[in-house]
Amino acid sequence: MVWDAWGIPAGHQPLSAQIRGLLAQVFGISGDPVVRRDEGDVPLRESALTPAQRDGLVAVVGVGNVSTDHHDRLVRAGGKSTPDLLRRRLDGLQDAPDAVVFPADHEQVLAVLAYCADNAVAVVPFGGGTSVVGGVEPDRGRFATVIALDLRRLDRLHAVDPVSGTATFGAGVTGPRAEELLAAHGLSLGHFPQSFEFASIGGFAATRSSGQASAGYGRFDDMVQRLRIATPSGDLELGHAPASAAGPDLRELFVGSEGAFGVLTEVTVRVRPRPETVVHQAWSFPDFATGAVALRAVVQAGAAPTVLRLSDEAETGLNLARSGDIGGGSVQGCLAITTFEGTRAHIERRVAEAEALLLAAGGAALGSAPAEQWEHGRFAAPYLRDALLDLGVLCETLETATSWSALAEVKAKVTAALTDSLSGQGTPPVVMCHISHTYPTGASLYFTVVAKQTDDPLTQWGIAKRAAGDAIVAAGATITHHHAVGTDHRPWLTAEIGELGVRVLRAVKRELDPVGIMNPGKLIR
Amino acid sequence: MVWDAWGIPAGHQPLSAQIRGLLAQVFGISGDPVVRRDEGDVPLRESALTPAQRDGLVAVVGVGNVSTDHHDRLVRAGGKSTPDLLRRRLDGLQDAPDAVVFPADHEQVLAVLAYCADNAVAVVPFGGGTSVVGGVEPDRGRFATVIALDLRRLDRLHAVDPVSGTATFGAGVTGPRAEELLAAHGLSLGHFPQSFEFASIGGFAATRSSGQASAGYGRFDDMVQRLRIATPSGDLELGHAPASAAGPDLRELFVGSEGAFGVLTEVTVRVRPRPETVVHQAWSFPDFATGAVALRAVVQAGAAPTVLRLSDEAETGLNLARSGDIGGGSVQGCLAITTFEGTRAHIERRVAEAEALLLAAGGAALGSAPAEQWEHGRFAAPYLRDALLDLGVLCETLETATSWSALAEVKAKVTAALTDSLSGQGTPPVVMCHISHTYPTGASLYFTVVAKQTDDPLTQWGIAKRAAGDAIVAAGATITHHHAVGTDHRPWLTAEIGELGVRVLRAVKRELDPVGIMNPGKLIR
Repeated sequence: MVWDAWGIPAGHQPLSAQIRGLLAQVFGISGDPVVRRDEGDVPLRESALTPAQRDGLVAVVGVGNVSTDHHDRLVRAGGKSTPDLLRRRLDGLQDAPDAVVFPADHEQVLAVLAYCADNAVAVVPFGGGTSVVGGVEPDRGRFATVIALDLRRLDRLHAVDPVSGTATFGAGVTGPRAEELLAAHGLSLGHFPQSFEFASIGGFAATRSSGQASAGYGRFDDMVQRLRIATPSGDLELGHAPASAAGPDLRELFVGSEGAFGVLTEVTVRVRPRPETVVHQAWSFPDFATGAVALRAVVQAGAAPTVLRLSDEAETGLNLARSGDIGGGSVQGCLAITTFEGTRAHIERRVAEAEALLLAAGGAALGSAPAEQWEHGRFAAPYLRDALLDLGVLCETLETATSWSALAEVKAKVTAALTDSLSGQGTPPVVMCHISHTYPTGASLYFTVVAKQTDDPLTQWGIAKRAAGDAIVAAGATITHHHAVGTDHRPWLTAEIGELGVRVLRAVKRELDPVGIMNPGKLIR
Repeated sequence: MVWDAWGIPAGHQPLSAQIRGLLAQVFGISGDPVVRRDEGDVPLRESALTPAQRDGLVAVVGVGNVSTDHHDRLVRAGGKSTPDLLRRRLDGLQDAPDAVVFPADHEQVLAVLAYCADNAVAVVPFGGGTSVVGGVEPDRGRFATVIALDLRRLDRLHAVDPVSGTATFGAGVTGPRAEELLAAHGLSLGHFPQSFEFASIGGFAATRSSGQASAGYGRFDDMVQRLRIATPSGDLELGHAPASAAGPDLRELFVGSEGAFGVLTEVTVRVRPRPETVVHQAWSFPDFATGAVALRAVVQAGAAPTVLRLSDEAETGLNLARSGDIGGGSVQGCLAITTFEGTRAHIERRVAEAEALLLAAGGAALGSAPAEQWEHGRFAAPYLRDALLDLGVLCETLETATSWSALAEVKAKVTAALTDSLSGQGTPPVVMCHISHTYPTGASLYFTVVAKQTDDPLTQWGIAKRAAGDAIVAAGATITHHHAVGTDHRPWLTAEIGELGVRVLRAVKRELDPVGIMNPGKLIR
């Protein structure tokens, strides 16, 4: 990953003339993008790792696996939210972990945590580094030293059980590598979040990630069958059956624990045969409300699409749903996309059932092309954001989920909060929204916000984010559908789970991490 | 509920000549059933409730809602496992809660817990009283007094959201009452465990109950959307969206918490339209292994039956799968049952898809009658057990779940453990088994054990249960698929979640119930 932007250098392309034209027209923005600093020129806070600490960590993981190298530290300076990237574009000293430690396996993770607990070293577990909520900030807490515990060497497919449809991965396996390893067995995980190309299996579990095919494959938390966990207090193996009544499901305490209790080192997930066929369909609805009723009918009927999403009028109009053709929107109203995967025999009737429901609810069929375009460009949006940021455009996303009956109200209130808070700063935004994940009882709402940057875009977005978060909580929705709490959503966690819920999390943390070395400041303080 | 047996008096019928014949033939058992004691003749441990405690509780719930009446205490003396019922058939003093308290609502529950924490009174939350794992034992822990906190007055349907498909129930609503309340809205919960007629919504959630239609409607834990919880440390409301990434899912800490952390007072669950059509199908497979492969094919294909179950050769042979016609078995091999519910249009292709898979896997279609017979008699088995116990027959069930790949081995090992441990006591058993709940990655195994009682059937079953539990744990399966931990499964909980997992549960309990009044001895000590 590039240290101050998304992805790999080759992914970064100049903005198209079409987008430049839109930016000039809507925000009056033109001119050249800022030139970012060369990595080597970035002044970095000096490493606080003591020689004794280095020796202690080397004794666990070996001399080649403890790094205080400038590059190694810099690329683990934090995650990939817009505020993260804006901060990295600021002049001046950058903070970063004092060292990067690369354990080889579960036992080494356990030993590193034990060492760090005994020697006052904070630990930030690091997978793909794609957090957009401050989840990998190198926060030292009350300690002088913080390390990034990079899990990339936990890169194995430990076991495949094709009969039961499960596979056990090391936490550091990335999305593409997991699919590659499974493909050799004719299997697929089917987890395709926007971070897919870089994020890791451990990160998916630790943050309750949800992929774009969640209607068919489920959220990542639904896929998790078994977890192996290393904590400063020892280790756990949880999950002995597809379902159990043996008390509380402790897996659900560690899925979403964001490294605050320990490190998920091995994850057993449900896998499926690679699909024989994929059917892509695009639909147009006259408005968002009509489209939402249609999506609800499909998911409540159990018609079982793999992907089921709906862009609102603004997103459809700008054609942001199909990032290969932004601004060239030709779809009227609201664009919906369905895909179905499986054997032809299995999906045939499901496609027909969904089609009938979507048509009956007022949809018009657009054929497969717009859906294929969406799929083709679905990992590109973060690169686009970088180009916009460089040009003085503020661009960020946030998401929530709520019941079907509250969906329209939540959408309206969050849109109003974003619009009012940014307009109040003299930068009226374009706010777009789509339903990205559907459930029988409700759906997610994913907002994209674009505005001209003020002189202080960090403060500018901070005000907007606070307004949106407050609106979400006031409407009774969740502060995050698939991006975890990190540092950025912590102000609203108490509203979500109550004072007593936070006390329960603290009690669990005290038991597992009594010294408090694990990912300080994330999830709970 | 009858105090010393299952259900209501009218449900108890004499054994048929057919069953009497089988018992004589297999176990050499004949003679008359024992005559059970009249409730009024049962000597009961004197209530330890002090006048001050009575006054304190009356101040919260009102004078008519604190009872030390003989009948009220006796019918809450414990649950309905075979050991429970055997103990109640013993002569001598019976233990029971010192009082029964009937709170009206969440606030009164909260106030009762606060009073009890301040005044050293242990609290056993009591719903339908159908626990088969000792979950409602009147265990006093380190206190002199224990009350049963009967939740029957929390009997309301608080809210229905037909758009989102959710309903909020008071914890004391029973299975039939929930269906009745929902039927007025054209809705159904679809949760039909064997305890359906008596058990409560709160109990379903607190024990991770799973109904016989779980293939279609899901386990009860899957249905739970939102929980309202009263604890000695205050209250919680958890669940703001159909899905969330806002940290650990604390609902999963309270679902299955068995009253050890607090009381679930209100439960919001997913509900569905009442089915337009139900299709019943019965199948015969040459053997259990072949049938299991067939069920796996159906559930992994996503053919989505509502009920999907398979009896092994022994259960099919005795026809126990159809309790209206026990001993009259005419099905060869292994009986499987599928049902499908929904609109005709929706289920048509799913029925066809499942049929094709079952036929291809070696199944023979038996028509609908055996499946309808099974459904008709599905709540009757506990009554049958009472008649057998009275005749000197030991009869009990236990269940586990494991992956598809481990299913045959787990079944063989548990069967062997039960057979060897009972044969070793001179009472060779008949051990039967069925798959009652299926998942893409595995299934449950539900065992029924019948043997001649020894002179000390409590010890006899204790030895068999210990052997079975040890075999389950040694094979890596879960100690319980849908009956919770209670007191009876506590010896194996550490094997299931590890020492550290138990420490996590204790940490949570310390935070929520620092005095330790909540359901002493259940789940964790």
